[in-house]
Amino acid sequence: MAESRFKIFSDPVHGFISVPKNLILDLIQTPQVQRLRRIRQLGVGHLVFPGAEHTRFGHALGAMALMHDALASLSEKGTEITPDEYTAALAAALLHDIGHGPFSHTLEHELIEGFAHEAMSRVFLTRLNERFHGALDLAIAIFDDAYPRPFFHQLVSSQLDMDRLDYLRRDSFFTGVVEGRVGVDRIIKTLRVHPLDGGPDAEIVIESKGIYAAENFILARRLMYWQVYLHKTVLAGDQLLRAILRRVRQRLQADGLDLGGSEALLFFLRRTVRHDQIDRPDVVQAFAALDDTDILFSLKQWMRSADPILADLSRRFIERDFFRVTFLPEPPSAAMLDAWRGRIADWLVRQGLASPSQAAADAAYYLILDRSRHAAYERAEAGIRVLGRDGVVRELSESTDTSAIATQTHSVIKPYVCYPRDAALADVLPTC
Amino acid sequence: MAESRFKIFSDPVHGFISVPKNLILDLIQTPQVQRLRRIRQLGVGHLVFPGAEHTRFGHALGAMALMHDALASLSEKGTEITPDEYTAALAAALLHDIGHGPFSHTLEHELIEGFAHEAMSRVFLTRLNERFHGALDLAIAIFDDAYPRPFFHQLVSSQLDMDRLDYLRRDSFFTGVVEGRVGVDRIIKTLRVHPLDGGPDAEIVIESKGIYAAENFILARRLMYWQVYLHKTVLAGDQLLRAILRRVRQRLQADGLDLGGSEALLFFLRRTVRHDQIDRPDVVQAFAALDDTDILFSLKQWMRSADPILADLSRRFIERDFFRVTFLPEPPSAAMLDAWRGRIADWLVRQGLASPSQAAADAAYYLILDRSRHAAYERAEAGIRVLGRDGVVRELSESTDTSAIATQTHSVIKPYVCYPRDAALADVLPTC
Amino acid sequence: MAESRFKIFSDPVHGFISVPKNLILDLIQTPQVQRLRRIRQLGVGHLVFPGAEHTRFGHALGAMALMHDALASLSEKGTEITPDEYTAALAAALLHDIGHGPFSHTLEHELIEGFAHEAMSRVFLTRLNERFHGALDLAIAIFDDAYPRPFFHQLVSSQLDMDRLDYLRRDSFFTGVVEGRVGVDRIIKTLRVHPLDGGPDAEIVIESKGIYAAENFILARRLMYWQVYLHKTVLAGDQLLRAILRRVRQRLQADGLDLGGSEALLFFLRRTVRHDQIDRPDVVQAFAALDDTDILFSLKQWMRSADPILADLSRRFIERDFFRVTFLPEPPSAAMLDAWRGRIADWLVRQGLASPSQAAADAAYYLILDRSRHAAYERAEAGIRVLGRDGVVRELSESTDTSAIATQTHSVIKPYVCYPRDAALADVLPTC
Amino acid sequence: MAESRFKIFSDPVHGFISVPKNLILDLIQTPQVQRLRRIRQLGVGHLVFPGAEHTRFGHALGAMALMHDALASLSEKGTEITPDEYTAALAAALLHDIGHGPFSHTLEHELIEGFAHEAMSRVFLTRLNERFHGALDLAIAIFDDAYPRPFFHQLVSSQLDMDRLDYLRRDSFFTGVVEGRVGVDRIIKTLRVHPLDGGPDAEIVIESKGIYAAENFILARRLMYWQVYLHKTVLAGDQLLRAILRRVRQRLQADGLDLGGSEALLFFLRRTVRHDQIDRPDVVQAFAALDDTDILFSLKQWMRSADPILADLSRRFIERDFFRVTFLPEPPSAAMLDAWRGRIADWLVRQGLASPSQAAADAAYYLILDRSRHAAYERAEAGIRVLGRDGVVRELSESTDTSAIATQTHSVIKPYVCYPRDAALADVLPTC
Repeated sequence: MAESRFKIFSDPVHGFISVPKNLILDLIQTPQVQRLRRIRQLGVGHLVFPGAEHTRFGHALGAMALMHDALASLSEKGTEITPDEYTAALAAALLHDIGHGPFSHTLEHELIEGFAHEAMSRVFLTRLNERFHGALDLAIAIFDDAYPRPFFHQLVSSQLDMDRLDYLRRDSFFTGVVEGRVGVDRIIKTLRVHPLDGGPDAEIVIESKGIYAAENFILARRLMYWQVYLHKTVLAGDQLLRAILRRVRQRLQADGLDLGGSEALLFFLRRTVRHDQIDRPDVVQAFAALDDTDILFSLKQWMRSADPILADLSRRFIERDFFRVTFLPEPPSAAMLDAWRGRIADWLVRQGLASPSQAAADAAYYLILDRSRHAAYERAEAGIRVLGRDGVVRELSESTDTSAIATQTHSVIKPYVCYPRDAALADVLPTC
Repeated sequence: MAESRFKIFSDPVHGFISVPKNLILDLIQTPQVQRLRRIRQLGVGHLVFPGAEHTRFGHALGAMALMHDALASLSEKGTEITPDEYTAALAAALLHDIGHGPFSHTLEHELIEGFAHEAMSRVFLTRLNERFHGALDLAIAIFDDAYPRPFFHQLVSSQLDMDRLDYLRRDSFFTGVVEGRVGVDRIIKTLRVHPLDGGPDAEIVIESKGIYAAENFILARRLMYWQVYLHKTVLAGDQLLRAILRRVRQRLQADGLDLGGSEALLFFLRRTVRHDQIDRPDVVQAFAALDDTDILFSLKQWMRSADPILADLSRRFIERDFFRVTFLPEPPSAAMLDAWRGRIADWLVRQGLASPSQAAADAAYYLILDRSRHAAYERAEAGIRVLGRDGVVRELSESTDTSAIATQTHSVIKPYVCYPRDAALADVLPTC
Repeated sequence: MAESRFKIFSDPVHGFISVPKNLILDLIQTPQVQRLRRIRQLGVGHLVFPGAEHTRFGHALGAMALMHDALASLSEKGTEITPDEYTAALAAALLHDIGHGPFSHTLEHELIEGFAHEAMSRVFLTRLNERFHGALDLAIAIFDDAYPRPFFHQLVSSQLDMDRLDYLRRDSFFTGVVEGRVGVDRIIKTLRVHPLDGGPDAEIVIESKGIYAAENFILARRLMYWQVYLHKTVLAGDQLLRAILRRVRQRLQADGLDLGGSEALLFFLRRTVRHDQIDRPDVVQAFAALDDTDILFSLKQWMRSADPILADLSRRFIERDFFRVTFLPEPPSAAMLDAWRGRIADWLVRQGLASPSQAAADAAYYLILDRSRHAAYERAEAGIRVLGRDGVVRELSESTDTSAIATQTHSVIKPYVCYPRDAALADVLPTC
Repeated sequence: MAESRFKIFSDPVHGFISVPKNLILDLIQTPQVQRLRRIRQLGVGHLVFPGAEHTRFGHALGAMALMHDALASLSEKGTEITPDEYTAALAAALLHDIGHGPFSHTLEHELIEGFAHEAMSRVFLTRLNERFHGALDLAIAIFDDAYPRPFFHQLVSSQLDMDRLDYLRRDSFFTGVVEGRVGVDRIIKTLRVHPLDGGPDAEIVIESKGIYAAENFILARRLMYWQVYLHKTVLAGDQLLRAILRRVRQRLQADGLDLGGSEALLFFLRRTVRHDQIDRPDVVQAFAALDDTDILFSLKQWMRSADPILADLSRRFIERDFFRVTFLPEPPSAAMLDAWRGRIADWLVRQGLASPSQAAADAAYYLILDRSRHAAYERAEAGIRVLGRDGVVRELSESTDTSAIATQTHSVIKPYVCYPRDAALADVLPTC
């Protein structure tokens, strides 16, 4: 009896996903891809949306599945795609996020200075390519935008790539935020490869019948930002987790104390690793060993730490006793900030968490000023291109009937402050 | 064994709908409500979206079910609602559209001059109230906005009423246009009754946590307009159907010919009925006898009419051989329109559909100039009101973070022209 | 700008359906296929399940779409399919139900004696083939099971064909009966073409990993029968409609009265048409002109008939004032039936619907004895075949772990009786 | 501005879940309930179904939400429920699974001899009741079936309880196995409290219109067992994880080696804890500290263990390189088992995983014989009770039309064996 040429995954978002039993399945079975099963897609988002436990692994499969659908749609419209290109594009979609660290975006900058997960993905791609004897050469060229047919790169990385299509659809599904639902099928069915300025190059465009689906995609993404990714309680969880790592780093580097915790995690906290060191073998090895488990297990140990601040912060995360977040109408003055810090310092002393002499310094872990920022659609970068009924390609926000988009091209920035609920700070804060 | 106090309907959109076995169920069983089973919700929309065969009956049930949910949500928040108010509000939601005629909005103005279906609903409400010996007094007061607690009227008729919530969700479901999906549950859970200007009156507001859901509702509505309600082929079908009725009216009133067709329909075509005559007994009786069946059956008879124009137009509708629609950059000049009419007249003669002497006049049925118009959100009318975290109520487009809405408050108007595909007109039309 | 080679339909059940712009789209645009837009898939089912207004047209598109998916899945597993076979199989799936009459199964036997809709589909196929100059030769061979690769016919007509997969999924969707939901994707992904007894012939089999999906399909079908297709109120509506046509036929043939109504419908009621006459030109023409509109419009006319029985029955249907259905533990004896008929006759007289001399005869329209019958799975016919992990093909009910199926292979038959709710019959009926 | 009386959770399965801001929300915020966020609902199921990362926390919320729906449905039918009973029933549903350990069912018996998670839930309930000063007295009485209205206990624990309804719906949702979807709404709408044998006691029954939904529930549950819970690869993952813990226990108790790993986990592996010791303070404390994180983090440490067997087994789990599972037609004879063990022992030596003298003993970790067992419906236990139209209550499998159920009342038992894919054992195994 003939073996099937596909392994089938049951995905609640896209239904059955067929994985060819070739390089693609081999890649899925590597420890690097399996590690993505232990990295939650939404960082601390599951602590706000209880269904959103989904991982980078499901997203990687989903992006690959959508790449298959997109290539099939383009083929039907006459764009020729060779078997090698097909496999390389699937591999690039599957591996595009392989460089993510624990809790996805939350901890990036606490572990490695100036970190960009794409750069780490590139490092992992090189390692995998060595292991597979160059089988990923073409996938890497697509990832690097060094392949002569640039539309493949656009499908992997652009404002309307398979990554975004999958994560919006997936995050909407698992959070239950139905307003973020994107018409992925419709968008993919209206993709087309179009000659660039009449020359030999070609780009991905949306046919004009897909214009509302594309607009809806921009607006759904914006909605997911404000309702999910930048949800106040998500920000609170993010900041708490980052404060904990900062505390550990400070104690380790100052006192050299043994606080316990995951060795792979401590590797990044005992020293400062910069973004230009990410291909050092010891860094790669430690990073590849890290996942959400290391963070959570370490927190559970640190809950019992002798350092009262570390113990309190860790307990707060494990028991989901987060700080409060208040958005501010504008960034506070230095004087306001000083006054707030003073209140927090007093509170720390009253709580027995810090001595009077330490409280001012330790207040940095309990009063966090930051700002959330989102631009739904960055026209400047490399806009979504629409093929009009007149045969002319225009940028989406310049196409007819998309007035709602034009307003989405600037960033929205909101300063906010994070602090313990019972620290009596709320009364003195200005409100929006 | 105790009878259940509810009859349960299985609705694919909202799941089970429980109908109290009291006045509400009695109303559902009247011929007036049963008639809604024979009126398609989307007029000719099912000829473009093959799943969209759903009727006004399902929508009426759905609006009633959402009214139940909204009242339950308001009750949980402390707004007291008496059993009589509950029943009256359900009745008002159930009956709000009872005055719709065949093919919903498409034919309104072809049957009665200056028609508004709300006015006809009001006429039907009075008749039903007589039959039920005044049991609808309170429902009618709510419908008329004459009830002292105006928030009930707002739930029946406003920019965020149960009617709109149901029809958007329902039309999105049956058309398969997932981008139009509205988070109905979320909106209903964030409704609240709030004192108006600190006085004794109260209005419906959205809590601030529902602001994105409300914004999404506005944008989804806009998207449904452009993708569904004003879809080019829907416009083409609408115009064709209206042209047929105009043709019949013209022949009946000019020649008094017997063209066949439904008597109830012919009632409105043999004479001119004005909007201020809708409560005349003969008008009400004829209107109450009308549904989609009368139109379709008449068209099937008229396909075999001796009048070649009527036969051709009717056949086109039944066989879905619609006119082409072309949007114009601006309304055409009189000279342009004359030139186009000339081409159509020539074509009519060549097709044997009109004699040279008649062709100019008959061209009016084959060259139709109109414009589509939509304002997603009419702030002026009576905007959606949002209760801020600061306790202040603001209009939605003035609330934080809703820049996308501010752009939706003006109307978008698009002129277009309708004509036979093979009439060689496309070449001379300006394009957008 | 290149025209797309596909027309896309938005289907709420299967999402986007791509229709090749060749013979398939031409077929869809014929009056014969467009007529299916006016024939409800579930007969009177929409009067019980208010969302179930869907038509044979959507089902025809859906069966065609699943045929595409099935052929794509078989191709991926190495079964070669030529472009001609592909188009023919799509055409056969699209047209398999084209011979259905108004209200689908309900009226079949009232219009034509011994009618089978497949035979009428075959007549229509021949006409279309003439019009398309033989382009349907191969589709007809597949339909007739005369094509040398019999698995194509199995995909069109067998216990696990595209017809059943689509209608179960579709009817479950539109009725809201989620328990009837079938894992169509999974079943299609596990189809395979397997050599029959090692010879050159081949059959469709299910891979063993699809065995639970196939079992679920059988059980879901059974559930849809008892909950939807044979729902008591559906039976009541069916019987009422059939009684009306019998009454009209009786009056027309006995008295030759002019009762009004659709001419195409009256064609079948003025005379007796037998199943071996269905290819007579006048029969084909009248049948092709018939759809649900003719029935409903005629009922609306007959509501005002001078025949009180016809008027009453028609009004009952239009106002959904159906008879009551009571299932019986066993078929009643002749004596019981006589007694019941006597009660009904008395009631008719009391109601002023029949004179004492006529009441006994007219009781036949108000007391209807029938039985519902369903066999979920007919092993004998041509069972579902499963390819075991050992390479041996077995019939589904003989495969491992499908004990639930073995019990489904016999027919379940339930006698029932239909009568007016207020006719005081319920008290004397035996109960199950 | 009035605070809302409910906190709303966005659940992708049931939509919005409203949690009263009273005892129920306080319970959710305890560390004991928050711990459920770190325990996957399906043990190793997420390694087979990539979307199935959902946790016991979401299930606890869901069961509580369904309890609310069930009580609301029963209230509408006239069963009186006091506010205290309402809160207690919600608490009981929320906490019913609070005693689950890491990986849910997988590890139960490896940690505590004769463990039953219900007993541990009871221990936790007592502790929480102390903390809440007796506020859980009534919830505990319901949990213990010691409350005079036994139907509350039935809603918490029976063959058709809120636990089962939620987990089937939830597991079907997150695995994407649509065939397992249960019509939860319909079942809940057809529940009713009925006097038991005419006496003062009352039981939960299903109204006869819910009979197909109940039957579908049984069959869906059976399907989820064979397709998900007892999926071959799930069994393989379960057995691997259990073998690892056995290995650690053996090494710790034999050699007292320091293997690293979570202290809370090691507590249970250094000693033997019996089910009658689960309320010992040290046991409760260690158990309450345990979650999936402890297991995964320990495995990641053990991958680098000096014990080659432990390192190999741990790596296999982390990299998802599971054993193969083969179902056997019958339990093997002792001689067969010996022969298979010999092959495995040889393979261990060849792989360098065991010395020749140790290989026979160590083979126990690489050749695992077990059996899967499932009874879809246990009539004997306490069947589902159906209220017939005749007012008589019957057990489901004795009700009309449920022949498919009668076959589901016996257990299906399948022996199987687990072993490394490359150990050349497959060839000598008998096949089903």
